[in-house]
Amino acid sequence: MIKILVFTAFNQAQQQKLKSGIPIGTQLIFNTDLSTEELPTAFDTAEIILGNPPANLFNAAPSQLKFWQIDSAGFDQYQELNLAIPVANMGAYFALGCAETIVGGILCFYRQLHQLVRLQTEKKWEGKEIRTRLQGLTHKKVLILGTGAIGLAVKKLLIGFDCQISTTARKNPLADLHNFKEILAVLPDIDVVINTLPGTATNYVSANFFEAMKPGSLYSNVGRGNTTVEKALLSALETGKIAGAVLDVTATEPLPKNNKLWRMENVILTQHTGGGDGNEAEAKLKQLISNVNNFIKGKPINNLINLAEGY
Amino acid sequence: MIKILVFTAFNQAQQQKLKSGIPIGTQLIFNTDLSTEELPTAFDTAEIILGNPPANLFNAAPSQLKFWQIDSAGFDQYQELNLAIPVANMGAYFALGCAETIVGGILCFYRQLHQLVRLQTEKKWEGKEIRTRLQGLTHKKVLILGTGAIGLAVKKLLIGFDCQISTTARKNPLADLHNFKEILAVLPDIDVVINTLPGTATNYVSANFFEAMKPGSLYSNVGRGNTTVEKALLSALETGKIAGAVLDVTATEPLPKNNKLWRMENVILTQHTGGGDGNEAEAKLKQLISNVNNFIKGKPINNLINLAEGY
Repeated sequence: MIKILVFTAFNQAQQQKLKSGIPIGTQLIFNTDLSTEELPTAFDTAEIILGNPPANLFNAAPSQLKFWQIDSAGFDQYQELNLAIPVANMGAYFALGCAETIVGGILCFYRQLHQLVRLQTEKKWEGKEIRTRLQGLTHKKVLILGTGAIGLAVKKLLIGFDCQISTTARKNPLADLHNFKEILAVLPDIDVVINTLPGTATNYVSANFFEAMKPGSLYSNVGRGNTTVEKALLSALETGKIAGAVLDVTATEPLPKNNKLWRMENVILTQHTGGGDGNEAEAKLKQLISNVNNFIKGKPINNLINLAEGY
Repeated sequence: MIKILVFTAFNQAQQQKLKSGIPIGTQLIFNTDLSTEELPTAFDTAEIILGNPPANLFNAAPSQLKFWQIDSAGFDQYQELNLAIPVANMGAYFALGCAETIVGGILCFYRQLHQLVRLQTEKKWEGKEIRTRLQGLTHKKVLILGTGAIGLAVKKLLIGFDCQISTTARKNPLADLHNFKEILAVLPDIDVVINTLPGTATNYVSANFFEAMKPGSLYSNVGRGNTTVEKALLSALETGKIAGAVLDVTATEPLPKNNKLWRMENVILTQHTGGGDGNEAEAKLKQLISNVNNFIKGKPINNLINLAEGY
C-alpha cells in the first residue's frame, strides 16, 4: 500500500476527485486530518508527498519518501534540502499567469491604462491630452532576465508584438546573453527589462544595472523581490532615469504602508498575484493526479526541478 | 507649380521637415497662415490637401483637387462627400495603438490590474485574495467584429496567446462570419467580443447581441461608440449577464459625469485614447511626405479609403 500524504488545501469534492484519480492500492492521507502528534510519523512513512509541507518537517529526513510534487511555482523555502528523489513543481502552470500579468502591466504602462483607471475613479475625462503620453509595445527592444518557465512564457506572448527580444541565462545555451558583463553592454539599448529570476539571484539587479539602463526605459519584475536592490530601483525612479516600473514582487511582501512605491503613479504594483488563476485548485488537482500516476506507473514525471537552484 | 494646402497642425520645425521632404516644384500653404477670407480660394485652387479640413469647406467642391491625405483614422464627418479623387487616411498607423490599448485593457480585466491600481491608490495589499478572481487570455475564444486595420492588428497581437479567433465582415471573404445571424449563432461560445466596427454600423450591437453572449463573458469596443446600444450594454452589465467591459469609445464623448459607466468597477474606460501615440506628429509627417511623393511621381498611394464606407 503506497502512502500518499497530501498538504494541498482541497475541499471535500476535490479530495474525492483526487481519490478517484489515483491508482488503486494507494492510501491517501490529508494533513488536515492529522493531529500535530501524528504528523511527523505520517511524514516519515509517506512514499509520496503532495503539496508544500512546512520546511522544518524535513529536519528528520523522511525515510520512505520516493516522490514529491510541490503545488506551487516557487520553492525557495526548500532550497537547502538535499533529497535524492524526484521533485516536481507547478512552474509551467503558474508561469503563464505570471507572463500574462507582466505583459498586461507593461501594456498598461505604455497605454497609460493605470492613469485612465485613476481618472475613472474621479469621473474625469482627459481623453486627447493623454494621447501624447502613449507609447506602443510593438517593435520595442525587450530584455528578459531568466529563461525559465516564466521567461519563455513571456517570450511566447510577445510574438505578435514584433519585439526584438534578448534572453539571459547562466548556462542555457538557447539564451542570448550568459553573464552580467554582456547584459550591462546591451542595457543602454533596451526599452523594457522583464525580470523573471529566481530567489537565488539575490540583488542581481542593483545600482550598476539601473545606471546602465536606457534613459526613459521601463523595468518590470515578476521573478522574486529579493533579486532587485529596492533602494537602487527607488533611486532610478526618483531621478527619472527610468520611466516607470511594473512590479509583481517586492523586497517585502505585503509591501509596508510607508514604502514609497505605493505613491508612485509611474509604478504598477500587482501584489504578487501574477501566478493567480481562478481555476488554481482544479489545475493543481490535474497535475497531482497526472504525476502520481506517472510515478507509480514508471512513466516520465512532468516539471521536475532541482531544489538547490531555487525559484 | 502644384499647390498643397495643409490642415495638419505642425510646429515650425515639422513644417520645415515637410517642405524639405516633398518634391521641388510644389507650393506648400498652411491653413494657419491664411485669413478666413483667403481660405476658400486656397481650398478651391489646391491640387493636394493634407489633413482634415472642416467638412463644410467641401460645400463648394474644390475644382482642382487631385489627391487628399486625411491625417486621422476616422473620417465619419466626410462620409457624405462624393469625390472622384484618391483619398488616403492613417488607419493602419492608428490601428496599432488601438489594438494595443484594447488588448492591454482585456489583459487588465483578466488579471484584475484595474482593481490592483485602485488598491494601490489606497495603499491596500490584498494579494492572495485577488488571485482566485484572475483568469488568463490564453486559449480564450475571441470574436473580432470587423476585419479592417484595427481588427487585423488585434488578431496579430493575439498570436502568442493561442486564442481561438473568429472575425466578421459583410464582404471580406477572409472573415469567418458574414452576417448577423451567423454571429448570433457563435456568441454563446465566445469569451471575449472585440468590436472594431466603423461608425456606419450604428446600433449593430444591441439587446439581442448581449442576450446571445456567453454568461460571464467580456465585451470590448475600440471601434465607434454609436455601434453599441449603450442602454443594452448597461443592462447586460447591471444584470451580470456579462462580466465586464473594456470601452475605448462610448456613445457620448466626453462621457457625461452622470453616466453609470464611470462608477462600474468591472468597466475599464480608456477615453478614446486608443489610437494615441507620443510620436503622432512624426508619424503623420512621415505618411504625408511619403504619399505626396507617391502621388506626384505616379507611384501607388498607400492606405487609400472609400469615404462612403465611413469609419
